[in-house]
Amino acid sequence: METVSENACFGGVQGVYKHRSSATGTDMTFAVFMPEEAKDGPVPVLWFLSGLTCTHENAMTKAGAQTWAAEQGIAIIFPDTSPRGEDVADDEAYDLGQGAGFYIDATQEPWSKNFKMWTYTAEELPALIAEKFEIDMSRQSITGHSMGGHGALTMAMALPGRFKSVSAFAPICNPTQSDWGRKQFAAYWGDETKWGPHDATLLMKSEGFDGPMLIDTGTNDQFWDLLGAEAFAAAFAAKRQEGIVRFQKGYDHSYFFISSFMEDHMNFHAEALWA
Amino acid sequence: METVSENACFGGVQGVYKHRSSATGTDMTFAVFMPEEAKDGPVPVLWFLSGLTCTHENAMTKAGAQTWAAEQGIAIIFPDTSPRGEDVADDEAYDLGQGAGFYIDATQEPWSKNFKMWTYTAEELPALIAEKFEIDMSRQSITGHSMGGHGALTMAMALPGRFKSVSAFAPICNPTQSDWGRKQFAAYWGDETKWGPHDATLLMKSEGFDGPMLIDTGTNDQFWDLLGAEAFAAAFAAKRQEGIVRFQKGYDHSYFFISSFMEDHMNFHAEALWA
Repeated sequence: METVSENACFGGVQGVYKHRSSATGTDMTFAVFMPEEAKDGPVPVLWFLSGLTCTHENAMTKAGAQTWAAEQGIAIIFPDTSPRGEDVADDEAYDLGQGAGFYIDATQEPWSKNFKMWTYTAEELPALIAEKFEIDMSRQSITGHSMGGHGALTMAMALPGRFKSVSAFAPICNPTQSDWGRKQFAAYWGDETKWGPHDATLLMKSEGFDGPMLIDTGTNDQFWDLLGAEAFAAAFAAKRQEGIVRFQKGYDHSYFFISSFMEDHMNFHAEALWA
Repeated sequence: METVSENACFGGVQGVYKHRSSATGTDMTFAVFMPEEAKDGPVPVLWFLSGLTCTHENAMTKAGAQTWAAEQGIAIIFPDTSPRGEDVADDEAYDLGQGAGFYIDATQEPWSKNFKMWTYTAEELPALIAEKFEIDMSRQSITGHSMGGHGALTMAMALPGRFKSVSAFAPICNPTQSDWGRKQFAAYWGDETKWGPHDATLLMKSEGFDGPMLIDTGTNDQFWDLLGAEAFAAAFAAKRQEGIVRFQKGYDHSYFFISSFMEDHMNFHAEALWA
């Protein structure tokens, strides 16, 4: 693992690191915020999974998350959203290929060679984090935005016991019924029988999440029709899932929306992580 | 004036606007954050002047300023740092020409045609803001970063009575003795007799500021030698200027530094603006 940069930030350190990934077969970049408390021993951690077109950098610079993570003594990990590079398959569309890994393991050519973002995010990167950082891996929570909200919700429900709490900002939560989902699942997998375990609404119906859940979506979200918020809310209610679904009046899909409610999300996770 | 975008943000609105500037002879873009309180009448305002290479966007997305402005009920204006466009003079260096207006009015060719950022920022934009936004222009304060810290300090001292308080993050504060200053002043003006009124250290010696001042600079600032922090601190002490000069251990020149101390700066200005 190589250090790309480290900056003092809210009494802690905002770092960017690069490593060779065996899952994706590429170099992968990720960012970690470590609060000041990490000097004294392992701290809890919040994963922030980002949306379409994003790298590790967007949420790191625009979500305002460090403000509240520092206050709560919690680390944050910002992974990239896909493998990248000249030798990595790509597509002209912003929502397929590089920047659009969708947190799944592709099985179809040309994607199957590198697009293993489920294995990378759920297995390889956590192992590296556990080895290299002063983080208490028994205290993990997860959040994400849009495609990253899809990733956060599906990982939280598919990996029971791993996360203390899960939240999401404007998540894609019914991808099997959306052009943000069907298009990518068809390209990466083809076979529709694999799709269910990676659809948050279907996972809510079958599994649910054993812990608190917080979902925020803006009523003016310009991608509302692609998100599946209504289907997810119905499944959430039918499951009697512990948690909160909120629709924020006037807010859209941007980082201005995320930063406006980041404090709420961090406090929500802190309560679970420090319990 | 044309609306480029408006996003809900911390209960208020983060807008981006474009207008034809008579000062620069170009279209100019700027951003304004209006807190929720503006619905009930005019609110105080903080100007945020940005640094080299920046547009209106950098501080708007990375400084975390809206968090605290919303809490304090204060608007923020983020102007651009120079005229821009294909017909506007430029230089290959990042610190001359477009993105490097230095908040002065150029008199030398080829810069004199468009590079009138003092007039733009100190006169034309305030007049537009007063006309178009619910802002109480009797309650203005100013801050900035690096080149924008230079702009904030020089405007605050050269326009007595306009600003209730002034602060800066890692300001260029002795440009007549720095390559961040001499190079640009020589290009834009030539004549050294004009430089003094645009050097914060010289202005501190001759004028000072009638109000509180807050300056933060990181001890690990990679541009320390270009900033002139020591000369300014000496002038600040000799003048017995009301205010605070702080050196923040381990912090550098980045937005991670700015965001870490933005709450302090906003609270500092709020005290003066709401007095």
